[in-house]
Amino acid sequence: MNSEVSALKNGGRKKPTIRDIADMVGVHHSTVSRALNEDQKQKISPKVVRAVEKAAEKLGYLPNIAASTLKRNRSFAVGVLIPDITNPIFPPTIRGIQDVAESEGFTVLTGNTDDDPTKERDAFRMMRGRGIEGIIIATARLSDPTVDECIKYEIPFVLVNRTVRNDGVNAVILDEECGVRAALDHLHDLGHRRIACISGPTETSTGVERLEAFRNFMKIHELGGDLVEGTARYTINEGHDACKKLLERDATFTAVIAGNDLIALGCIDALNEADRQVPRDVSVVGTNDMPMLSRMVPALTTIHTPMYQMGCQAATMLLEVINGYRSDSVVLRMQPRLVIRDSTAPPKR
Amino acid sequence: MNSEVSALKNGGRKKPTIRDIADMVGVHHSTVSRALNEDQKQKISPKVVRAVEKAAEKLGYLPNIAASTLKRNRSFAVGVLIPDITNPIFPPTIRGIQDVAESEGFTVLTGNTDDDPTKERDAFRMMRGRGIEGIIIATARLSDPTVDECIKYEIPFVLVNRTVRNDGVNAVILDEECGVRAALDHLHDLGHRRIACISGPTETSTGVERLEAFRNFMKIHELGGDLVEGTARYTINEGHDACKKLLERDATFTAVIAGNDLIALGCIDALNEADRQVPRDVSVVGTNDMPMLSRMVPALTTIHTPMYQMGCQAATMLLEVINGYRSDSVVLRMQPRLVIRDSTAPPKR
Repeated sequence: MNSEVSALKNGGRKKPTIRDIADMVGVHHSTVSRALNEDQKQKISPKVVRAVEKAAEKLGYLPNIAASTLKRNRSFAVGVLIPDITNPIFPPTIRGIQDVAESEGFTVLTGNTDDDPTKERDAFRMMRGRGIEGIIIATARLSDPTVDECIKYEIPFVLVNRTVRNDGVNAVILDEECGVRAALDHLHDLGHRRIACISGPTETSTGVERLEAFRNFMKIHELGGDLVEGTARYTINEGHDACKKLLERDATFTAVIAGNDLIALGCIDALNEADRQVPRDVSVVGTNDMPMLSRMVPALTTIHTPMYQMGCQAATMLLEVINGYRSDSVVLRMQPRLVIRDSTAPPKR
Repeated sequence: MNSEVSALKNGGRKKPTIRDIADMVGVHHSTVSRALNEDQKQKISPKVVRAVEKAAEKLGYLPNIAASTLKRNRSFAVGVLIPDITNPIFPPTIRGIQDVAESEGFTVLTGNTDDDPTKERDAFRMMRGRGIEGIIIATARLSDPTVDECIKYEIPFVLVNRTVRNDGVNAVILDEECGVRAALDHLHDLGHRRIACISGPTETSTGVERLEAFRNFMKIHELGGDLVEGTARYTINEGHDACKKLLERDATFTAVIAGNDLIALGCIDALNEADRQVPRDVSVVGTNDMPMLSRMVPALTTIHTPMYQMGCQAATMLLEVINGYRSDSVVLRMQPRLVIRDSTAPPKR
């Protein structure tokens, strides 16, 4: 039988092996193995190496990564935990992680948690079962069981966007204090004094730090920090409901700083329902600068978060840990930038 | 030495093995192996099974999927090729694929191609190297080298959103004719007669089929189909440049049907630059109904594509092929639905 035909018939599915290449070239399979190994090919005659490479190309041979994983105890895979890929905040971060990880030969496994502990545990178990060499966590709560497990089993991990209470972690997050101050300076300069905060979930570092920065600013400027309403999740619905509650309780505010852009969009919806126009009656500021905001009405003023770059930095950091180039931990705080659009204006006289 | 400590010290990284569990329980490792195997655990005393399960839980043991992959010649992984995860059209489709695949125990590997053949080949090779059992392709051109490779190497594949010229493929796509007709009926009913088409790339089925549907409609209604400009990619920039070119050539049109939503947004930009307001001077219709469109100004009238459901259907189909439940191919055409918003109005008198 022709050796090419035998190779193609191998295993029902045409998945060629080193032995098929050996048959085709007419050499021992150990010779093929060496010819395809960059570190060993110089031991074989260049003519044989070329013949093996040609046969491998013709047969569509690819090295078996599962075999390499077992033999070298490496998977060249990393995990990424996000709340939900359809939330427009996350794709730029994932793309940054993919671009860096893939350029270093790593595959990225992404898991959606929907902020559900059961889904998170399942996604994390799946990734561990696949032998991920490390994980980037965009879902961290201040006290986080997945982070605890990573520490317990010494799985390299990097937090992105949100951090935890534990010391000694690697994280790429925003300089929240700086971002909130820029936004509040802007509102203050416009003349706003009754400023409200619709904050993010208090079990996340972003929720807590942004609220703390708001309270600091209000205290320094002696403006009182009582106009606060919390949310349980970073969603449009939560923003809507919290803003509605605040309007019922005390509608004297002329500006709102929201926990993130989705919460801000929800606030705008609630304000519109209460016949309060943005920015004529109330100014609104978001956080993140998610894609397409500039096309919305009103175009949202927001604290720009370099989401793609944060993904790149987190992946770089994780690969440094995996490769043993980094032993001490670091929290990298990225600089935000206020983007002023059409949702902020001076208060009505 | 305490066996738990020895297990934790195993291999520098604390990755516990069946032998660590055996040490802890005080049984032979083959007993542990059987106790953790659903098909074989009844051969072991329930007391030992419980002890093994307790030890496995305590040590954080997970079965090694790389080993299973080699032994059973299965990876339980599927690939997804998309142009770019930050393009808002794709996350809902990916989420649909993930939800179905993960519920069946499959991991999803996602690759961005940026419509670049080199990147596409690299992403596909990486996936094959990982032993994917099948692939969902959202990047297909009418003549597509990745599809050809899948056919050559008998890799199960399903096309989503776009299809190819080859017969006998599995695909989940939109009923393009139906969508375009609904949009053009709407424009025609509003009174538009000079209707232009800024079409998608002609090497994609979506580009060709939507343009063909446009030409058919214009012919049937004796409106002439000469107001056509093509694009090389489905992007805002391409839509902008094509619309600008059309305006320079013949600015008599009162309505535009665009190849997709991004092209439509680019058209609106070009029309604004030329001091033509949407919809007062020109009506614009998109395709896809990507997230957040209803918040944009003007809120885009568009042909809604059930992107999440298409992802679910494509994954279901792929798993049926992988599991051998399906042998004949099928092209599933999903029903679109026209969503009328603020970018369409009667032409100026």
